[in-house]
This record gives sequence, structure tokens and C-alpha cells, in this order.
Amino acid sequence: MRTYIDELKKHVGSEVSVAGWVDARRAHGKLIFIDLRDRTGVIQSVVTPKHEAAYAQAALLRGEWVIEARGIVNKRPEKMVNPDLETGTIELEITDIAVVGHAHELPFDKEEKLNLDTHLDHLPLTLRSARNRAIFSIQARIIEAFRIFLKKEGFVEFQSPKIIGEDAEGGASVFKIEYFDHEAHLAQSPQFYKQIMVGIYEKVFTTGNVFRAEKHSTTRHLNEYTSLDVELGFIRDHHDIMNLGGRLMHSIISHVAETSAHELKILGATLPLIPHEIPHMKLRDAQKIIHERYGEDCAKEPDLSPQHERWISEYALKQLNSDFIYITHFPSEKRPMYVYEDEADLGYTKSFDLLCRGLEVNTGGQRIHEYDDLVAKIQRKGLDPEKFSFYLQAFKYGMPPHGGFGMGLERLTARFLSIDNVKEATLFPREINRIDTLLSH
Amino acid sequence: MRTYIDELKKHVGSEVSVAGWVDARRAHGKLIFIDLRDRTGVIQSVVTPKHEAAYAQAALLRGEWVIEARGIVNKRPEKMVNPDLETGTIELEITDIAVVGHAHELPFDKEEKLNLDTHLDHLPLTLRSARNRAIFSIQARIIEAFRIFLKKEGFVEFQSPKIIGEDAEGGASVFKIEYFDHEAHLAQSPQFYKQIMVGIYEKVFTTGNVFRAEKHSTTRHLNEYTSLDVELGFIRDHHDIMNLGGRLMHSIISHVAETSAHELKILGATLPLIPHEIPHMKLRDAQKIIHERYGEDCAKEPDLSPQHERWISEYALKQLNSDFIYITHFPSEKRPMYVYEDEADLGYTKSFDLLCRGLEVNTGGQRIHEYDDLVAKIQRKGLDPEKFSFYLQAFKYGMPPHGGFGMGLERLTARFLSIDNVKEATLFPREINRIDTLLSH
Repeated sequence: MRTYIDELKKHVGSEVSVAGWVDARRAHGKLIFIDLRDRTGVIQSVVTPKHEAAYAQAALLRGEWVIEARGIVNKRPEKMVNPDLETGTIELEITDIAVVGHAHELPFDKEEKLNLDTHLDHLPLTLRSARNRAIFSIQARIIEAFRIFLKKEGFVEFQSPKIIGEDAEGGASVFKIEYFDHEAHLAQSPQFYKQIMVGIYEKVFTTGNVFRAEKHSTTRHLNEYTSLDVELGFIRDHHDIMNLGGRLMHSIISHVAETSAHELKILGATLPLIPHEIPHMKLRDAQKIIHERYGEDCAKEPDLSPQHERWISEYALKQLNSDFIYITHFPSEKRPMYVYEDEADLGYTKSFDLLCRGLEVNTGGQRIHEYDDLVAKIQRKGLDPEKFSFYLQAFKYGMPPHGGFGMGLERLTARFLSIDNVKEATLFPREINRIDTLLSH
Repeated sequence: MRTYIDELKKHVGSEVSVAGWVDARRAHGKLIFIDLRDRTGVIQSVVTPKHEAAYAQAALLRGEWVIEARGIVNKRPEKMVNPDLETGTIELEITDIAVVGHAHELPFDKEEKLNLDTHLDHLPLTLRSARNRAIFSIQARIIEAFRIFLKKEGFVEFQSPKIIGEDAEGGASVFKIEYFDHEAHLAQSPQFYKQIMVGIYEKVFTTGNVFRAEKHSTTRHLNEYTSLDVELGFIRDHHDIMNLGGRLMHSIISHVAETSAHELKILGATLPLIPHEIPHMKLRDAQKIIHERYGEDCAKEPDLSPQHERWISEYALKQLNSDFIYITHFPSEKRPMYVYEDEADLGYTKSFDLLCRGLEVNTGGQRIHEYDDLVAKIQRKGLDPEKFSFYLQAFKYGMPPHGGFGMGLERLTARFLSIDNVKEATLFPREINRIDTLLSH
């Protein structure tokens, strides 16, 4: 019966079986010390010449070899206690070792700070570092919290296809697929399907990969990422969606705080500050603030630039005590065809971006729900409604006022943990020149 | 404050606000009856000429129009009670109606039994039927149960990329993508990544879309489906994986039974019979049984045909009292390069298929974990290890004995509910000739 390392403290004085990777091995006089790592932690182990076979085996061990071992859990003397280690009050005296997986010599210490390309070239090894295990275990908690919250609110999960004909966002940055004798595309979002699903269950969510053929490589963009998508019917306006998004964010932050104290400590990360209600302002008001406080006149621009987003986040933190701020009312002509125009502010939409610590992490808003309005809007955008006939059925056969949003899981992870480059918060990031390994030219 | 339909019973005698779709509308003498549908149920409502404006509005309503209404919840007289309806003891007397979404005339009654193509052509409408809402709400419960069970067992969720270079399964049925100036592919499974992740967390799972460029259109195949994937380290052999798969299946079946009694009743479905331990047999023994009981000699074949799977399932149900059976030990040369050969039965693998009611729903087994063995196996398959260098790092830097499995969510849904064609258990199925609408030629 295997005992996990985080349970060893309960077995002081007993013999246990453990298994894991050799995190480090060093000789100290006649003693061999092995830091053994499993999915729950690291334990300092010692092998003495007294246990001949184990000692001979221990002498051969190298980093990342996989072993099963037996040993006695001993309490460390007071002065040997390591307060930085969860298991710092105990030590394992190993009596038997069996090697179950061998490793070649490591190219570098996996805990080393590497440049991004070296890190990405060696992910199967570098992801094993304490830092990376902490990042992606928090990422798992974020998506878990997303689902827990929405299920409590009565949302139904659905599975959205990624192979699509026409793209919802209508942009150029879409990947082409050879679909038998046809050309198809990879979905940039589950937009059409989540709207259709509002007709089925009113409140829906979906999680899954989405694809953007962005040619520029930045610290903010990914060619493939995990989108957390929500859509709900019978709303009054976009404020209902923003309110839902705010409560969801509260819930995610609490869940990460409750489940991941150890990981946050490893990363030295502080979760974002979120007030009871996330502040919001129109794009035009944000632009005024930028002009007044930072001296740049961007009033004519249809969106915020990355620098503008950082400025407004700085403003929100200093003036509104919030790491989050909603920017609303982007101009109608720059938003996709399904976005709802504000009757009280013509030319501007009931849509929003949510900024967190200088970066947009959530985009959403109210959608057009009347068939005739949507067909007219598609035409006004210079598109052909016939190409959207499948999607349009949802509206032809009755849709309530509705809206929703989409969040990038990797961006959210990066902002929660103050990681500058979103690629470091992505397990296996795709770049224009990289699919796991660099693409040859 | 909106009241959902399944809560109306608590409000007899009170005035409530409701919202939803017109499921049906009929005039009966001077009365207009409206069956109003929301995400929680259907309520029979009545409008009398007494409420003039509401009555005039009700006269205009048609199927699938979306309304908000106010009214009084009345108890039905004993003889008017409808025992087939959850809300059959009450009726809503509507006093106000506001139309919030209009619908065109419906092409057919959405509850009608349609042929598959008509169904698929009109999914935004046909998915609204009671039957389809039940199917996909059970599907949501299956994936929910999958995650709940694995998290309790200490598995960590991870996000697997779908854009890949080389394919894990090495088959021909892989879709090509234009990836900037390169050719890339759509993943047929998260196989490589889940194995890599065993090196990080030991026990991992992932859910997401996978893609198969299968040219044949059958009742069993999908070109895109949701794969539920599991991988775990420190196993003894494939029996540990099969045992995990069995406990997982028990847990899913219990969860669906507990959460979905109403939906199972709508579908007239009986969940599969699962014994405490799922029986297992080698492929060769299954072939012997087929020969003896059904007269077909298939001993030379490397796999079971669909008919063989049905026969063995029939045998398992009659003789072993189980809707499930594991078939193990497929020949090594017909399984992918990562599959582990049984040292005690050379030429055959520690792999399995799990059949449920005549169809394979889960495939898995132990994997090769030593780097040198895996490189040798890749070469023996006539493949170039250099192309797998990224993946191979996981093994180069130390891997424990491990294994796992993958299940198709849609197939599982279909078998649980005894739905013959898996496309009816898929929200938006992709076919060789269809992406939402039929592809033109």
C-alpha cells in the first residue's frame, strides 16, 4: 500500500512504502540523501550503508529516476527541522529501493530560471518544476470554480463543435481545415452555438479550445487557448451579464484562495483585489481619463490599446480600489454583427470588456435576439445572411433577450498570478513558429 | 422577480411573473390556452376575455414566441389534474403578457419524430423538444460525474492542445490544417499530452474535442466528438486501469440515476446493468465464444467487428449479467506504438476495449514507460523517433509505469439511453457531407 508524501507525517515511527521521482540526490559523508517527489510533495530521505542493497542502488540514482521505496518515517531533531518544507519535521530512512523508470542525464536543473524558448522546448521536463506545477494546479482550480459557480446558478454545460463553416467573429484570423473535399475552419469562439443553446436551456456554459490565426507573437496572444463561455436568456440588458460576471469572478477568487494557499505561496502571488461590485465606465469616459491623467488623446479610437488598458487598470486600482474594471459601449461598427446597439446611446453597443491588472480577460454583452434585426445587421456589415442560415434559425424560431461572455483561461491564470507572458500560463502554447518544437523553415 | 415553472406549485393563490416560450397555443370556446415552457418545465396557462389586453395579445401568439407574463397560480379541480405533467395539479391564469421575442411559422411540430436529416437541418429548433432536452441534460450529467469522480480520486484536470504536428495514433484519418506557412493536424486524441502530464501530476484527466477524418458515415462514428481522457502513473498493470474504469462507470451511472430520473422517464430509458466488477476476457477467448455460440470463426482477426461486439455483449448480458465487458490482449502489431506488450503473453498487449450494450465505449491500457523501449517500438513500427522528440522527453526524463483510457461522451450517452445512432446523442454532429448544413457539391 503506497503512502503519499503529504501523509507521511501521520506515520512517524512506522514503515511505509512510497514512490516518486528523484528530485535531487547528494552524498554527505557516508550518507546518501534523496529528495523524493510525488504528486503531493517532497520528502528528504536518507540511505545509510547499513541497508546494503538500497545503498548500492541509491548510489546509482540520478535526477528524475522513478523509484518505489520502503523506509521508516523518523522525526527530525529540533535543530534539523526545515520550516520551508511541508514535510520539514520528518525524514524518511530508506531500507529498500526499486527503480521503476530510468532517466537520461538532465540538460539543466528543472527549477532553474530558463529563457522562454528553452522552457518551451523542454516542457515535459520543465513543467515538473515546483513553480509550474503550482501554476497549472491553480489553473485547474479556476476552471473548476467556473463550473461549480455556474451549476449552482442553474446553467447547463454543453459541448460545442470546433469544426465550423462560417466564422462567428467574421475576422481574418481563422485557421483553414481540409474537410474532405471542402474547406472548413476552426472556431474562434463557440458564439453561435452558445446562442443557439439559450433556445434550449436558457442558461448555458461551455469550456473548450478556440483558435486564432494571429500572426503576431505577443505576451498577450495565443493561437489556441481555452475559452470559458457563458450565455443566458431573459436578461434586462448587459448589466445583468456584467453582474453575473462579477459574482463569478468573486467565486473563482474565493475558490482559488481556499484551495491553493500552498501554490500561491510558492509563486509569491497575491490574488486580485475585487470590490463588492466591479466598477464600470463607458469607453469614451475611459478615454477622457486617459487624456486627463496620461496626456494621450485617444478619443477617436474604437478600442483601448494595450497601454490604454494598463493605464485604466492603474486608475481603477488607485482610484476605485479594484484590480477589475468593466469598459462598456464600444462603437457598433467595430463589434461583431450579433452585438446589441444601445437604444439610448445610438452607435454604441451594450457590450463590455473586463480588464484585470492591465489586460482584457472577459469580453461580452447583450446580443441581438430578433430575427429581422439580426438579418438587417448582417446585411449592414456586408455579409450574406444565407451563409448564416443555420444559426439564424435560433432567432427565426423565437429567442429571448440574452447575452453572455467569454474568458480566456490562460489569460485569467496569468493575471491572477501576475505572470507577464500568457505563454507561461499555457501548458503547451502554439506560436506562429512553434507546435511543441520549433517549426522548420 | 421571475418565478421558474417548477416552483409555481409553491405559489398557489399568489400572483407571479413567469417567462418562456409558447410551447403550444389553442383556443377552446372563449378561452385561450397556452402551454408555456421555460428551462424548468411546462405550465398550462389560460387567458380569459376578462383581461382584455392580455387576451388580445394571446390571440396573436404562435409557437415559440417568447413572452413574459403575469398571472395567478390556481389549483386545478380534481378531475382536471394531469398526472403526466409535473405541474399537472395547477394552472396559471394569465393577466398580462409582453412579447419579448417573435418567431416565424414553424416548419413542423418540434416534438414530431423526424428523419435524421430533417432533424439535423433544424437543430436550433429540434433540440428544443422534450426528448432532446432530456438527452443533452443527461449528457451534461455524465461529464459532470466523470469530473467529480476523478477529482475525488486526486486527479488533476489539464488543457490539451488540439493543433498538433505528428499524430499519436499514426493513422490516416487525421484532418490537415493550414498553420501559417506549415501543415499541422487536428488531434485524434490527447494521448501524448496526457502521458506527458503523468510526469507532472501522476494522475490527470482532460475533456475536450477530438477529430477523426473518417470517410464512412455510420451510426457509430463521428468526425468530431468529446473525449473523456484519463491517465495515471504508478500502476501495476492494465488491471489497475480497468479497475479504475469500472469504479468510474459505477459512479457515472449512480450520478445519472440520482440526478436525471425525470429525463430518463421522458426517454423511457433504463441505465445499463453493471456488476460489482466488470467481467473481462482476452480477445482470443471472445473469439472462441463467438465461434462456439454464433458459428463464426474470427480467430485470425486482430479486432472485433461491430457484429462481434454485439454478440459478445449479448453473451455478457445473458451469461454474466452485465451490460459491460472488457476485451483485453489485442495483438501488438495492430495497436499504436505506445501500447505495452504483455511479457507473459508475447505478441499481445496489456490493452483493452470496454464494450457497453454492443459497442466499444472506452479504449485504454498500459503504456510503454522506458525511453529505450519506446524508441525501439517506434522504429519497429517504421516511424521516425525524431518526429516524436518532444513527446519522447517525458520518457527520457523518467516516467513511472502508467496507463489510461479515453471514452467518447456521445457514445456513452447513446449507450446509456439505448439511442441507436450516436449522431442523435451529439449536439451538432459533423459528417463528411455536413457542417451544420449540408455541404454543397
